[in-house]
Amino acid sequence: MKLITLKDIKENIGKEVKLKGWVRNYRKSSSKLRFVIFRDAFADIQAVAFKPEMGEENFEKVKQISLETSVEIIGIPKEHQKREGEFEFQLKDLNIIGRSDEYPIGKKDHGTDFLLSNRHLWMRSRKQNAALKIRHTVYYAICEYLNKNDFYRFDSPILTPNASEGTTTLFEVPYFDSGSAYLSQSGQLYLEAGIMTLGRVYDFGPVFRAEKSKTRKHLTEFWMMDAEAAFVEHEENMNIQEELIRYVVCTVIDRNTKELKILDRDINQLKKADAPFKRMTHRQVIDMLKNKGVKIGYSDDFGAPEEEMITEGSDVPIFVERWPKEIKSFYMKRDKENPELVLGADLIAPEGFGEIIGGSQREDDHDILLGRIKSEGYDVKDYQWFLDLRKYGSVPHSGFGIGFERLIQWMSGIRYIREVIPFPRMINRINP
Amino acid sequence: MKLITLKDIKENIGKEVKLKGWVRNYRKSSSKLRFVIFRDAFADIQAVAFKPEMGEENFEKVKQISLETSVEIIGIPKEHQKREGEFEFQLKDLNIIGRSDEYPIGKKDHGTDFLLSNRHLWMRSRKQNAALKIRHTVYYAICEYLNKNDFYRFDSPILTPNASEGTTTLFEVPYFDSGSAYLSQSGQLYLEAGIMTLGRVYDFGPVFRAEKSKTRKHLTEFWMMDAEAAFVEHEENMNIQEELIRYVVCTVIDRNTKELKILDRDINQLKKADAPFKRMTHRQVIDMLKNKGVKIGYSDDFGAPEEEMITEGSDVPIFVERWPKEIKSFYMKRDKENPELVLGADLIAPEGFGEIIGGSQREDDHDILLGRIKSEGYDVKDYQWFLDLRKYGSVPHSGFGIGFERLIQWMSGIRYIREVIPFPRMINRINP
Repeated sequence: MKLITLKDIKENIGKEVKLKGWVRNYRKSSSKLRFVIFRDAFADIQAVAFKPEMGEENFEKVKQISLETSVEIIGIPKEHQKREGEFEFQLKDLNIIGRSDEYPIGKKDHGTDFLLSNRHLWMRSRKQNAALKIRHTVYYAICEYLNKNDFYRFDSPILTPNASEGTTTLFEVPYFDSGSAYLSQSGQLYLEAGIMTLGRVYDFGPVFRAEKSKTRKHLTEFWMMDAEAAFVEHEENMNIQEELIRYVVCTVIDRNTKELKILDRDINQLKKADAPFKRMTHRQVIDMLKNKGVKIGYSDDFGAPEEEMITEGSDVPIFVERWPKEIKSFYMKRDKENPELVLGADLIAPEGFGEIIGGSQREDDHDILLGRIKSEGYDVKDYQWFLDLRKYGSVPHSGFGIGFERLIQWMSGIRYIREVIPFPRMINRINP
Repeated sequence: MKLITLKDIKENIGKEVKLKGWVRNYRKSSSKLRFVIFRDAFADIQAVAFKPEMGEENFEKVKQISLETSVEIIGIPKEHQKREGEFEFQLKDLNIIGRSDEYPIGKKDHGTDFLLSNRHLWMRSRKQNAALKIRHTVYYAICEYLNKNDFYRFDSPILTPNASEGTTTLFEVPYFDSGSAYLSQSGQLYLEAGIMTLGRVYDFGPVFRAEKSKTRKHLTEFWMMDAEAAFVEHEENMNIQEELIRYVVCTVIDRNTKELKILDRDINQLKKADAPFKRMTHRQVIDMLKNKGVKIGYSDDFGAPEEEMITEGSDVPIFVERWPKEIKSFYMKRDKENPELVLGADLIAPEGFGEIIGGSQREDDHDILLGRIKSEGYDVKDYQWFLDLRKYGSVPHSGFGIGFERLIQWMSGIRYIREVIPFPRMINRINP
């Protein structure tokens, strides 16, 4: 008898097959009839256990199952009699692989803390499973786009000797005789070395922020994709980001229709984001916010509430570009047309999902960069190697960083960042 | 005029084009003739600067270049007159983008420490560039194989609350009120939760080992791919690994012929590894080593010298399987035929490249696993969630971990692990 998975159910209609998986749910209909919701890695299926068809002995085994029992089921897949495109399974036999007594997650509402403490089990639920599958798709959609566009993967280090932007949110690690190392918050500076040999590079890995906030938006460990490209300037930098994000949108809709439905994601709304993105200057955005009654100045940054207002009524993400230099990083290139501004752009997702990308053209002039490092009060010695990149064959270049979990949230419509990563780490949560 | 890269040189033979990149080298042939080795992200090309063809003014600009000057070159690509399949560039004009005065890496031999301190520049060399390109290929070859075989990416956490195997080589990180966190050495335990919802999963990210050894084989931060699969037992586990590694071998040969040549890699030797792998029990290996005169016992582990001897004379990797339980991890499943052994297998690469994979079937019996945790002296509380996986629908399962840099070393033939990662971290090296 053939061992199959629910991925191949269509090709096995009417044939006797074997499947391995878990019991998601079950119910008794009568003394002769029971229903088992069986799940494997790919899908759920309703298995019908009818005593006259199974025989007394096999039917008895069905009575032994409970939530999350692991089982092997034998029987015949059929088209569902009422729901088109769905399947049923006529059970002939069932063997228990592993018992599951008093599975702690039931149908009743559990508190967040309880679910997070049982994250290793909670991830078996349909919605959590769907979120993790979308995570997989978003990851590879990003990589596919970059690889097709001549970006090389270039893994930047996690253990770093100094901070690119302040130290208050850094995790410190004792490091042999060197004193301390810090967990990376971005690989960007390293990528800028990489482009000088590989042209276009990216990293994609965990970054860390010792953030003391407990909001639904913050993790202490999250994933970031940083990309950097030689000979790319501000406008083209935004074009690349737009193409990339639209590719991700289309790919998720294409590969995860089922998962988006499980999560009640409005797919039509998501589809609308595959259209030209809007671009506004920081100043235009401030004006718009002022018009909406927000008390904000022309040198101010935005918080989450302002981000929501910016894309209100917009189906597509919005680039906010040309920022006052005071509120952006030292490595951003000055705007030729107005040296008070830098050529940075943040990309704000629609539907209130906030900032998903931060990027900029980078300062490629050695002396201007040195001046910025000094005026920020950083130790020049720490940035000597970074300055070298402007000393030996400097080129115009740009880059951007995608907050991976933020992007998954937008794709999946999940409001809590802790649900789009397998084992979330927060200020008060490092278990399991 | 069209801006192209050296990737598209073939399609532009005879046309006037523009290229952007760097000067790898140059030489004066006569007062009228100079040669410039131009490089971009894809290749090198010799540009011929002949005064009568360029004109006085443009030829003067060529005289201003130095090692690693960034330039824009304008001219006509041609087939190389003598070397088939190669190209030359007839220079018409050259514009300097960024100067490069006294580039520190020259033709003379530099010491390792000097090169590592200038890693941000050293990576521009042909061999370092080739190694990083092979790294990219190996990464995606692994992902491609796994994705095609129904494995889902499942990012395990870096910040972990306790050690799976001892604490002496762990990096400790102060973590808010929780006391300490530790940097992960393997995501395996987390993946075992993942398979219960996604069937087959893998992670692929940095792991950390506070290793006090300074050998050419050790990094404190390196990359690991851990895979785990439900319903897969010991034999199939090895089959998956073999197929995966053979896929990587073929992919690297296919996509990186040029880079392998730059590194003087013996491609024919590498090709021979695409054949059935050998399998030996730990006991057979000990017997073989004894025959070769090694003083070793039946309960001993191997070191690097023994690993080299094991694959001596073998073109293919060798699985060493069924190990004495004392020298392997607590989570490995006992061999039914001999409870003194566990169903683990290490894969040893040929040509002296040592262990590239460690894997095993996992203990899926709750009580046996609990006994192992206790007898190792671990705190059961720390492993409660891991035990839960055997309590609620346990299934037979197996997994393995690939040492990413070790595998790249074998593919590329590079003997020093520090050369196959962009910014190596070692006991005495965290800069740049």
